[in-house]
Amino acid sequence: MPKIVDAEVQRRAIASAAISVINAAGLDGARLRDVARAAHVTTGAVTHYFDDKDAVLEAALAEIVRRIHARQARAIAGPLHVDAFIAEACGHLPTDDASRAEWRVWLAFWGRAVADDRLRAQHRAYYATIVLRLTDRLQRIARPSPPTRRAAGRCADALIAAIDGVGTRATLEPEAWPAKRQRAVLTQLITPLLTAFAAAP
Amino acid sequence: MPKIVDAEVQRRAIASAAISVINAAGLDGARLRDVARAAHVTTGAVTHYFDDKDAVLEAALAEIVRRIHARQARAIAGPLHVDAFIAEACGHLPTDDASRAEWRVWLAFWGRAVADDRLRAQHRAYYATIVLRLTDRLQRIARPSPPTRRAAGRCADALIAAIDGVGTRATLEPEAWPAKRQRAVLTQLITPLLTAFAAAP
Repeated sequence: MPKIVDAEVQRRAIASAAISVINAAGLDGARLRDVARAAHVTTGAVTHYFDDKDAVLEAALAEIVRRIHARQARAIAGPLHVDAFIAEACGHLPTDDASRAEWRVWLAFWGRAVADDRLRAQHRAYYATIVLRLTDRLQRIARPSPPTRRAAGRCADALIAAIDGVGTRATLEPEAWPAKRQRAVLTQLITPLLTAFAAAP
Repeated sequence: MPKIVDAEVQRRAIASAAISVINAAGLDGARLRDVARAAHVTTGAVTHYFDDKDAVLEAALAEIVRRIHARQARAIAGPLHVDAFIAEACGHLPTDDASRAEWRVWLAFWGRAVADDRLRAQHRAYYATIVLRLTDRLQRIARPSPPTRRAAGRCADALIAAIDGVGTRATLEPEAWPAKRQRAVLTQLITPLLTAFAAAP
């Protein structure tokens, strides 16, 4: 009997494998046959789903964005006070092997996107959805009166910039930035921001 | 009479040209002969000073770090209150063509550094000097009693993370992030941090 595979499941398995390979070898060093080996499929299976290495990279990033959305979805179920937003932000930092790999792929993507309009458009779309979900939740934060959409959006931008800044430094200096230090600096940076936002009249 | 050139001046001129070329073509697209043309020198002059493309990239980054230090040195002459630190931080954002080019090279460098120990070590050394200079100044901020070295260092880390986060997003979405928006988000993020730091007993 032929092996029946779910195309979407296999695409995502290949994308996950691409994250490990880019993590280990960098973007320039990542080869399609290494991705195939890591995904336990043939090189033909990889090229069946993806036209070229750029397409695999884009799929890897799409997989990372799905994981970010999953973390955001878990946070949605939680309470809407300052501490919960701080805990959620810390949950996006590169504090274990899996998230460190995601951040390394993300930075490799940035490096390539600066000179590639298409990748930059994709990046913009990803950030738009991430900001949107966070803005929705910030608008419902516990405070005297609900914030305007604009104020919540600006707070979301600031929060995401804080996470990106701490996460980038920690990704490039993993030995010097263990989880505890990352959380301490991010908490110091966003606690006064969120406290002021939650206390606004 | 032979033309006498100052080696250090020529190296820096080539490094500056490399910033423009990497800015325009990305790291993968930057060729030594384009750098030579932009610097108005022969390709032989470039290879005389630099062994390979990586060496040119490293020189480009060293030039950017020199410019950051120059901006920090200008700030040193200024006052040591919260507003001055905010203005200084905003001065590091990608708000004009020259600084946008620097940021694009910086991001391209990150993308390569994630998989290159040597580049990462260089990056760590650069950040160490930038943090050190900022920490020195934060320790002398106007406040009831001088902060500990540790507290000032942590505040410096947070400030630099905030600049990196805002600057990265603006570099990747230049149309959506004009100077005004960058300064607004960065100011919102660091004003409460610096205010709390300056008010600490």
